[in-house]
Amino acid sequence: MEERTEINSLGEFGLIDHLTRNIEIHHAGTVLGVGDDAAVIDHFGKQTVVSTDMLVEGIHFDLMYTPLKHLGYKSVVVNLSDIYAMNATPTQILLSLAFSNRLSLEALDEFYEGVYAACERYNVDLVGGDTSTSQKGFVISVTAIGEVAPDQYVKRSTAQKGDLLCVSGDLGGAFLGLTILEREKQIFLENPKIQPDLENETYAIGRQLKPEARPDIVEFLAEKGIRPTAMMDVSDGLSSEILHICKQSEVGCVLYEEKIPVHEEARALAMKLGLDPTACALSGGEDYELLFTMKQEDYDKITLNEQIAVIGYMTDAAEGAHIITRGGSKHAITAQGWNAFK
Amino acid sequence: MEERTEINSLGEFGLIDHLTRNIEIHHAGTVLGVGDDAAVIDHFGKQTVVSTDMLVEGIHFDLMYTPLKHLGYKSVVVNLSDIYAMNATPTQILLSLAFSNRLSLEALDEFYEGVYAACERYNVDLVGGDTSTSQKGFVISVTAIGEVAPDQYVKRSTAQKGDLLCVSGDLGGAFLGLTILEREKQIFLENPKIQPDLENETYAIGRQLKPEARPDIVEFLAEKGIRPTAMMDVSDGLSSEILHICKQSEVGCVLYEEKIPVHEEARALAMKLGLDPTACALSGGEDYELLFTMKQEDYDKITLNEQIAVIGYMTDAAEGAHIITRGGSKHAITAQGWNAFK
Repeated sequence: MEERTEINSLGEFGLIDHLTRNIEIHHAGTVLGVGDDAAVIDHFGKQTVVSTDMLVEGIHFDLMYTPLKHLGYKSVVVNLSDIYAMNATPTQILLSLAFSNRLSLEALDEFYEGVYAACERYNVDLVGGDTSTSQKGFVISVTAIGEVAPDQYVKRSTAQKGDLLCVSGDLGGAFLGLTILEREKQIFLENPKIQPDLENETYAIGRQLKPEARPDIVEFLAEKGIRPTAMMDVSDGLSSEILHICKQSEVGCVLYEEKIPVHEEARALAMKLGLDPTACALSGGEDYELLFTMKQEDYDKITLNEQIAVIGYMTDAAEGAHIITRGGSKHAITAQGWNAFK
Repeated sequence: MEERTEINSLGEFGLIDHLTRNIEIHHAGTVLGVGDDAAVIDHFGKQTVVSTDMLVEGIHFDLMYTPLKHLGYKSVVVNLSDIYAMNATPTQILLSLAFSNRLSLEALDEFYEGVYAACERYNVDLVGGDTSTSQKGFVISVTAIGEVAPDQYVKRSTAQKGDLLCVSGDLGGAFLGLTILEREKQIFLENPKIQPDLENETYAIGRQLKPEARPDIVEFLAEKGIRPTAMMDVSDGLSSEILHICKQSEVGCVLYEEKIPVHEEARALAMKLGLDPTACALSGGEDYELLFTMKQEDYDKITLNEQIAVIGYMTDAAEGAHIITRGGSKHAITAQGWNAFK
C-alpha cells in the first residue's frame, strides 16, 4: 500500500523545510536562497533581491468584504514588504492572476487600479505577468524584484546576543480588522437586512484591507547609519516572527509585554471584542511592520523616532525565547502565528 | 446599472492589452516591460531577464493523466523557455503553489522531484517561493530569472523585411499528445475496464507531458555569431506566434507549408486521428520550440544544423501574413492558437 502523509500534519514551515531539504545550488550568483523574506542574486557582481507570494480567494481574502481595488493594492504591498525586510528597495513586480468568468472586466479593472496605485505609491514598475482562467476562485501571484547595494542586505539569521529587538509602527490592528469584518459578515449572512456597523472601526479595518509597507523605516535606518543585524517583516504575528529570528540566528530573547506597540484604537476595539490586545499583537498577522535587531550602541540614534519601539533584547540560545508580562511573570513565547494550514 | 463586460469577450491578448494600457514606467532600469516573452531589467548597468507563468489544474493540466513529476518538470521548463526566447540564460526560479489537502505529502514530493530534475537539467537554482492551501485545484506559479550580456536580449518587435523566418525542432507533437491523452481519458471514463492504449504514441505523449526548452539553439546561434533579429517561443501554436512577431515588428510574412517541420511519428498519428498535420503545427500549442528571424546573409551558417528549419521570410506589413500551401495556394494566416479563454 502506498504511504500517505497528510500535508497539514507538518504545518506550513515544516512543509517548506521538507520540500526544500534537497535543494542544490548550482550558481555562484545565488547569494541567498530559500529561507528568508527574499532571495539575493548576484548578477555580474551586483545584487538583485526577489520574493514571491500567492494570495488565494477563500484562504487569504474574502471578496464579500474585500473591495477589489484594496485587494490589488494589498497584493502588491505584501510582496514589497518582503523586499524592504531585506533592507532593499523594490523596483519591479510581476503579476499573475487566475480568475473565473464570474469576474467582469470592470471588476478586474478595479483590481488593477489598486495594483497601479501601489506601484505609484512605492515607485515600482509592473513589468510582466500572466492571466488565466481558474475553475474556481481568484488566485493572485506577485513576484517583487528589488536592488540592494552589494552586501547590504539583511538576513534573519544574523542577530547576536545583546542586540536590541525593535519593531516599527504598531501591531494587532490588521487581525482586529479581520475579526470585525468576519463578525459583520456572519451577522449579514444570518440577517441580510442588518446593515454592517463598521464606521467606528476605520483604523483596524484599514490595517486589514489596505496595509502599507515601511520604506520609511529602511530609509531612516540608512540615514542614521544603522545596519540592522537581522530583519524580517511581520506577516504571521510577532511571536512567530521572533521565533524565526531566534531559530535562524541561534539566539534567545526577552520580550517585554509593556513595550509591544498597540494602537489606542486597536486596544479599545480588542477590549470591546473581549480579546487581549497583547495576544492580538503576538498572534494576529498581516501588520506588515518591520521586526529587526540592532547593536545596543545604536540605541541613541532611534530614540526620537516614534515609529520604532524597542521591545526586548537577544540572549543566549540556551535561555530560550520569553515574554515578561506586565505583571512581571515570564512565559515561553510560542508560535501561535496565523498559519494558512490550520 | 453597473456595466458588466464579460472577460472572454476580449480574448487573452485583448485582455492583457486592456489591463496594461495605462502602465507607467518609473524606473530608468526597466529596459523592457510587458509585451514580450520576458521583461528586461537593468540593475546597476547589467541586465536581468524575468518572466512568470501560472498553471491551473483543469485549465492547463489534468491530473488524471499527468504524472506529478512530469508536471513539476514542465512547470519549470515552460518558464525557462521564455528566458531562452529572450536570447538569455536562466539562472534562478521562484515557485509558488496552492493546493488542497487532497494532495498528500508524497504527491507533493513527486512534484518537487520533477522541479528539481528540471533545475538540474537546465542548471538553475530554486531560490524562493510560497506554499498555500487552495479551495479547489492545484495552482502553480513559476517566475524565472536569467541573465543576458548587455543589450544582447532579443525582442519580438525587431524583425525586418527580408529576414528569414526560422523555427527549431518540430511542431504539432504536443497537441497530438494531448489529443490522444484526452481521447483515452474519455474511453476510460465511459468504461473503466478498458486499459488505455498509449504504448505506440510515446513520442507525442512525451512532447505533451515532458517538453524541453531549447538552450542548444541559443548556444548554437551565439557560437555562429548569429544574433536573431526577433525571437519568441512557440507556446500557443505557430500561427499565433508568427502573428505576434508580424504585429509587434510591423512586418508581413510568407510561410511555406512544406517547410514546417513535423516529426514523422506526429505526422503518422495525425493521419490516424484524421487530423491535418499542418493544422496541428499551426494551431496546436505547447511545443516550446524557438521561432526566430535572422538576416539572410546568415543563412549559410545554419544549413548544417538539422534542428533549425527556414520556414519563410518577412515582407512589408502591407503584404500581410500568408501561408503558401503544398498545392501552391495562398491563405491568410489566422490565429487559431490555443487560447486559455476559449
